[in-house]
Amino acid sequence: MDRHELISKLSVKNESKIVLLVMDGIGDLPVDGKTPLMAANTPNLDALAKESELGQTIPVLHGITPGSGPGHLGLFGYDPLKFQIGRGILEALGGDIEVGKDDLVARANFATLEGDIVVDRRAGRPATDISARVVEKLGASIKEIDGVKIAVYPGKEHRFVVKFTAPWLDERVSDADPQKEGKKIVWSEALVPEAERTAKVVNEFLKRVREVLKDEAKMNFALLRGFSKHPVMPSFEEIYKMKAAAIATYPMYRGLAKLVGMTVVPTGTTIAEEIETLKKIWNDFDFFFVHVKKTDSYGEDGDFDKKVHVIEEVDSLLPEILSLNPDVIVVTGDHSTPTKMKSHSWHPVPFMIRSKFARSGLSQKFDENECARGTLGNIMALDGVPLMLAHALRLEKYGA
Amino acid sequence: MDRHELISKLSVKNESKIVLLVMDGIGDLPVDGKTPLMAANTPNLDALAKESELGQTIPVLHGITPGSGPGHLGLFGYDPLKFQIGRGILEALGGDIEVGKDDLVARANFATLEGDIVVDRRAGRPATDISARVVEKLGASIKEIDGVKIAVYPGKEHRFVVKFTAPWLDERVSDADPQKEGKKIVWSEALVPEAERTAKVVNEFLKRVREVLKDEAKMNFALLRGFSKHPVMPSFEEIYKMKAAAIATYPMYRGLAKLVGMTVVPTGTTIAEEIETLKKIWNDFDFFFVHVKKTDSYGEDGDFDKKVHVIEEVDSLLPEILSLNPDVIVVTGDHSTPTKMKSHSWHPVPFMIRSKFARSGLSQKFDENECARGTLGNIMALDGVPLMLAHALRLEKYGA
Repeated sequence: MDRHELISKLSVKNESKIVLLVMDGIGDLPVDGKTPLMAANTPNLDALAKESELGQTIPVLHGITPGSGPGHLGLFGYDPLKFQIGRGILEALGGDIEVGKDDLVARANFATLEGDIVVDRRAGRPATDISARVVEKLGASIKEIDGVKIAVYPGKEHRFVVKFTAPWLDERVSDADPQKEGKKIVWSEALVPEAERTAKVVNEFLKRVREVLKDEAKMNFALLRGFSKHPVMPSFEEIYKMKAAAIATYPMYRGLAKLVGMTVVPTGTTIAEEIETLKKIWNDFDFFFVHVKKTDSYGEDGDFDKKVHVIEEVDSLLPEILSLNPDVIVVTGDHSTPTKMKSHSWHPVPFMIRSKFARSGLSQKFDENECARGTLGNIMALDGVPLMLAHALRLEKYGA
Repeated sequence: MDRHELISKLSVKNESKIVLLVMDGIGDLPVDGKTPLMAANTPNLDALAKESELGQTIPVLHGITPGSGPGHLGLFGYDPLKFQIGRGILEALGGDIEVGKDDLVARANFATLEGDIVVDRRAGRPATDISARVVEKLGASIKEIDGVKIAVYPGKEHRFVVKFTAPWLDERVSDADPQKEGKKIVWSEALVPEAERTAKVVNEFLKRVREVLKDEAKMNFALLRGFSKHPVMPSFEEIYKMKAAAIATYPMYRGLAKLVGMTVVPTGTTIAEEIETLKKIWNDFDFFFVHVKKTDSYGEDGDFDKKVHVIEEVDSLLPEILSLNPDVIVVTGDHSTPTKMKSHSWHPVPFMIRSKFARSGLSQKFDENECARGTLGNIMALDGVPLMLAHALRLEKYGA
């Protein structure tokens, strides 16, 4: 029996509330003997650890470094090797752009061309309002190619989204992006014969962009990547029978949550505002995905001290979450982002789960070492949601 | 390659003896900081732990609470998601009722009807001998319907078993049981078109029961559920090349062992008697499944102290098992039954294996925490038998 089939057969509704608090990229490596989690002063996380089961999650497979997409699919209980999401789809969903089954979306950058050479892949990082005006100009000029409806949507700075609409579009086309500066324009190519017509439309779009923007000083071209259609997958509510809310300050994570059918709730830009939002919607949902971005951002920056600081900020706000009395709370990440690597990594991710049914008592604090020696051991990230359901008594017994 | 295909290719016979000692529902949760295994005084189990590899097993998947069927299939090395057993089959096998390939069996309850309403699903829990007499009366009156041979077998109190025999019977019919009292009779329904004739026979049987029992005060109807045929699965001996004996005081566990082709050996009602049986048959088999029921029963009762006591009883008898010099001994459970939950649970199950090839020395005692930090880590329950075979040097190298 398939995992989702089993879980959806066994899952039942009740009044319990589950919080999944994700500190993006939380796992790290020791610097002078301590990871940021070890170095941070976290009395509240440590107190929670004493009441929790600790373990560590493997996001995809041992050794595999996940992007945010696979990382979050795993967190939501979807096998990231089975369900794959293009970057374009994430960007679109996070930007509140509706995506239907006939749509093909791509992330776009404004870029600067000199002749056929891409000299700046971000067109000098234009201000968001200036870039938005150029997107508007594109939208007014390019509406249709070969029967394909085209729409463009502004994003932050140099970024925007392109949506192509026609029933026959195929996502199996390559990125139109040289990846490095100082290289010639790269056109999109069909990766399978069925996608040839799609690649032609994409390249014709790029030619029109070049024509429309030829008088722009810097934003005179576009790079397109992550072509993707909406993946076919069962919704979170369908499988788990929970109404789920997502609270996230960054578009991509809202997009990921929307993809599995969670309700994205508007929030502010700080962790404190996210917790305020959580309080406000507490009575309206069963499951709450709360995403903290900055642990990952400072990991990517290689800024150990700031990562420590974000962890301490989360720790100081944790009592406010706990005061809501969630039946189950999980604190984890979607992957590790070691500051000394300045990137996502494959390392297992700290995980703790507290409920009144936790096999607690073995662990004293929340960090990589305690999680490695916790009662849960190593689990696959996608085992997390079934565990949460179990602790919330939302899963019936399997078999007699 | 399929797991069973691999193991049966690699497995060889030798003179070794393997004991699988199952304390049903052994895993637990701490109460005042200690689980029953931690609270119990277990010098012999702890001494064994020092010579063993410890770990914890996942019965089905993380978060999934197994019934006894899936729990034991896992223990015997069969994937409980691949092989599924109906409740009727378990009940029948445990009651020493022969089940062949043309048989369809169901668990039955005597129930009390008032008009069309089921007012007592257990007919006032009649004494076993009284209920047996009514079963006899049914058997004498109903022998055949639509060419289907019918047999009934007494069970404890209100329970009995019905066996329908015809080559065309189909198990895909729904339970004829309203599940709750004060509800109308529920008839069996075909879950697939092929099962329609079966459902008709079942319902005709129920009408005849009603007719035959119309003068009974309480036992005037029957509820039928768990319709099942003998599952198609390879036998224990076929895969593992071991003659296996099962020693269990409760019918269901004898039934489960019989299902995989073990020889069920008559025994008494106490653990001490089970060990006596073990000694008696020691020369006749290679593999010995010894099942201790009461750890689970007291878990279900929420009786911490009595669960502790059963563990201490097992501990005190362990030297008698060890005096037989088994080449491999495993002590584990089929699932956890935390006393504070009074039910089976999803929590990982303590597991230890001793042989002269155990990577011993890390663990000091046998309890949930030591197992969580043991050398084996988390394993799937179905990995247990291959490990036992390996420690018995009954598995050849895979590949050159």
